[in-house]
Amino acid sequence: MTKTVMNPNWIAVDWGTTNLRIWHCDQAGNVLDETKIQTGMGNLTASEYEGVLISHIDNHLSDDVITEVLVCGMAGARQGWQDAGYLTAPCDTPALNQAATVHTTDPRIMVRILPGIKQPEPADVMRGEETQIAGFLIQTPDYNGLVCLPGTHSKWVRVQNGQVVEFQTFMTGEVYDLLSRSSVLKHSVSGAGFSQSDFVDAVKSAFENPANASSQLFRLRAQHLVNETDATVLRARLSGILIGQEVAAMERQWNHLPITLIGEEALCSLYKS
Amino acid sequence: MTKTVMNPNWIAVDWGTTNLRIWHCDQAGNVLDETKIQTGMGNLTASEYEGVLISHIDNHLSDDVITEVLVCGMAGARQGWQDAGYLTAPCDTPALNQAATVHTTDPRIMVRILPGIKQPEPADVMRGEETQIAGFLIQTPDYNGLVCLPGTHSKWVRVQNGQVVEFQTFMTGEVYDLLSRSSVLKHSVSGAGFSQSDFVDAVKSAFENPANASSQLFRLRAQHLVNETDATVLRARLSGILIGQEVAAMERQWNHLPITLIGEEALCSLYKS
Repeated sequence: MTKTVMNPNWIAVDWGTTNLRIWHCDQAGNVLDETKIQTGMGNLTASEYEGVLISHIDNHLSDDVITEVLVCGMAGARQGWQDAGYLTAPCDTPALNQAATVHTTDPRIMVRILPGIKQPEPADVMRGEETQIAGFLIQTPDYNGLVCLPGTHSKWVRVQNGQVVEFQTFMTGEVYDLLSRSSVLKHSVSGAGFSQSDFVDAVKSAFENPANASSQLFRLRAQHLVNETDATVLRARLSGILIGQEVAAMERQWNHLPITLIGEEALCSLYKS
Repeated sequence: MTKTVMNPNWIAVDWGTTNLRIWHCDQAGNVLDETKIQTGMGNLTASEYEGVLISHIDNHLSDDVITEVLVCGMAGARQGWQDAGYLTAPCDTPALNQAATVHTTDPRIMVRILPGIKQPEPADVMRGEETQIAGFLIQTPDYNGLVCLPGTHSKWVRVQNGQVVEFQTFMTGEVYDLLSRSSVLKHSVSGAGFSQSDFVDAVKSAFENPANASSQLFRLRAQHLVNETDATVLRARLSGILIGQEVAAMERQWNHLPITLIGEEALCSLYKS
């Protein structure tokens, strides 16, 4: 295999359940190269992580220096690569010296995994999002408000004085996946298109009447059977019902705070609307 | 195969997605024998239904007479044995002369499938429950109130003057199954025990604050990770959150009507509490 001319100073990795993201950075933290692999941790056993990582970064490594690899995300969970523990909220975002050093066999790398954050009451946990928030706080250290990180498990995080004060997780993305792939709704919402206006209508309806939101789900199937409503409309409504419920819960809890969205463009644009 | 001495006058069948129930009845409608098979329709193609049915009723059939088999449930759906259509609510429960006759090859049976009921707006459908309600109305023809039929897809049905006036479906049972078997919660709720008091607490909490109910789901996982809460408690809470949401929606819509529960003992007792 040919080596690239670019040798990163260090490598940042976000290793989640469904995605593996790798950034090759220079000393100043500028990203030289970026990779996203959609397989994530899958069913990896602890001993398989190093090989998978090396297979994706091999041509960026040099035989002459040890490259630091800093990992955040579910790879630091008990069932992951190595348990990196949790900080306990309220707390600062994790610092380098709190990272767990991982025993590796390839002499070209030195791997550390950052801890997640846990909240004892009401019980909640995050792994990976705390590091995204750390990046956000470097740019805006005085931010006082909510940070919303949409995803498989959306997080709403209250940030104050550079700290994670409290947070709450929603299974919105996972429930959407389960319902659209494995439930009786799968026939009604399959396909690709998306109706933005129906999405917004469903968000509003679920936001205003969250008690009724769960009863709207089967109705999607019935709209398909009885009214032959198009899958593009029904898929947008399903997404809207679930996100509307999430926003309704957060609005009632933290209605006076500014909100910052962190995440992938496509998902954030749904939450903005 | 030996024949039993008992020859039923007719056979009633409720053929749903997950269960097949068969009742052997005498002319007066008394149940002589009852069978429940937990496989349901699964992935049967239309041509496979007759063979499956015969395999379960064969030793109750006589070569000398034609036994009537009356079927309700999802077997009458478009993807089922034969499309038996829908009545449109508000309407009476389906009568025998509205049943679709099915072409069969075994000369010992004559099979008819009862139609379901559809509701155009808000869109909803039922198949099977309308026949349970018909049975209930034979006993209490003057009932004016709600009938709740818990299940994979729970139905809340407003009954008046012997008619199905309107109804609403909740995917409570299916969502419970998906979350406890296929989601990140599966590790937290696996097992068998059940904590009734935690169930009731979760129902109350979801009933009083339905906006927040969807945010309680991931918390079950977090309670497991952070507080090592027992699966017996978490499973009861999951069930309670979902049923509490359902009851909250119905309470806000139909809070002045009497409620009758129809269904299996175990499930009904959860809804009663």
